[in-house]
Amino acid sequence: MSYANAREALAEKIRLVPDFPVDGVLFEDLTPALADPEAFSLVVDEVAAKAKEYGAELIGSLDARGFLIGSAVAYKEGLGVLAIRKKGKLPPPVHTESYALEYGEAALEIPAEGIDLTDRKVVLVDDVLATGGTLCAARKLLETAGAKVTGLCCVLEVEGLGARERLADLPLFIVNKG
Amino acid sequence: MSYANAREALAEKIRLVPDFPVDGVLFEDLTPALADPEAFSLVVDEVAAKAKEYGAELIGSLDARGFLIGSAVAYKEGLGVLAIRKKGKLPPPVHTESYALEYGEAALEIPAEGIDLTDRKVVLVDDVLATGGTLCAARKLLETAGAKVTGLCCVLEVEGLGARERLADLPLFIVNKG
Repeated sequence: MSYANAREALAEKIRLVPDFPVDGVLFEDLTPALADPEAFSLVVDEVAAKAKEYGAELIGSLDARGFLIGSAVAYKEGLGVLAIRKKGKLPPPVHTESYALEYGEAALEIPAEGIDLTDRKVVLVDDVLATGGTLCAARKLLETAGAKVTGLCCVLEVEGLGARERLADLPLFIVNKG
Repeated sequence: MSYANAREALAEKIRLVPDFPVDGVLFEDLTPALADPEAFSLVVDEVAAKAKEYGAELIGSLDARGFLIGSAVAYKEGLGVLAIRKKGKLPPPVHTESYALEYGEAALEIPAEGIDLTDRKVVLVDDVLATGGTLCAARKLLETAGAKVTGLCCVLEVEGLGARERLADLPLFIVNKG
């Protein structure tokens, strides 16, 4: 292995693009890191170890980039992956949870039949933690469906946007700070 | 294991919803199958074996549901996963390939820097093969970037929409027919 850990691999492989999507934002594009076998497996292994520590019985992954990590984590741990979709992608019946965006609102959905979530321990996996709004909505959605969210794992964090406060009662792992 | 193969697991776990997204269409929702550990691992293992047979050096997965399978397949094979994104998700510079939809058009994008695709053998992974339009565009996109697409793997197929003709020169694996 060329890298000691995922953080080192990410530092090498992330594509940094200034002023995207708006002026003043430095966008961290994970695409090249996930396309690199070593960086990808290090990220997945570290998230999988944490998910196990958090007691995961199912991995919940967030549409769309969360799928890129959550799927492999679930596979590695011998679990299923629950796709938590953006509104409108799934046929009825669904559970829906709306949440506020900077302008307007969005919603997340999961099927309301075919998956028994009662008392299941779910660890949520996404790419970037920013405001935490999406993860909060995903958590409420799963709780509505009877599941228990026992931890959160993200690859990167944009600090200072309130996510830590919003999600303070749950264990949180950020790969890039691991 | 309760199932002999992925096809048997899919038959049990797929959620069939009539008249979605439009009247007369029977929608096959894979979400419960992917959330089931056994069905999920069977699907991933069968796709991974085919990807290996097709000489995959990198897994290309299609935004968004293709990510749910491609990521685990890449992990299992010790490869990276290339996220082939819908237009507008990635910061510049990008490679772009447009394609026709029933009404209007769409486009796929990958980063134009940070990932060396020259002469890389890529196997494309998606959830459902229908018209093949998205996979055709993804293939052109990768060829533009210097890669060689050596095979295609999907979980389900909607027959009679022309995909087989459109992609006739490439090996194709459909899990549900395996």
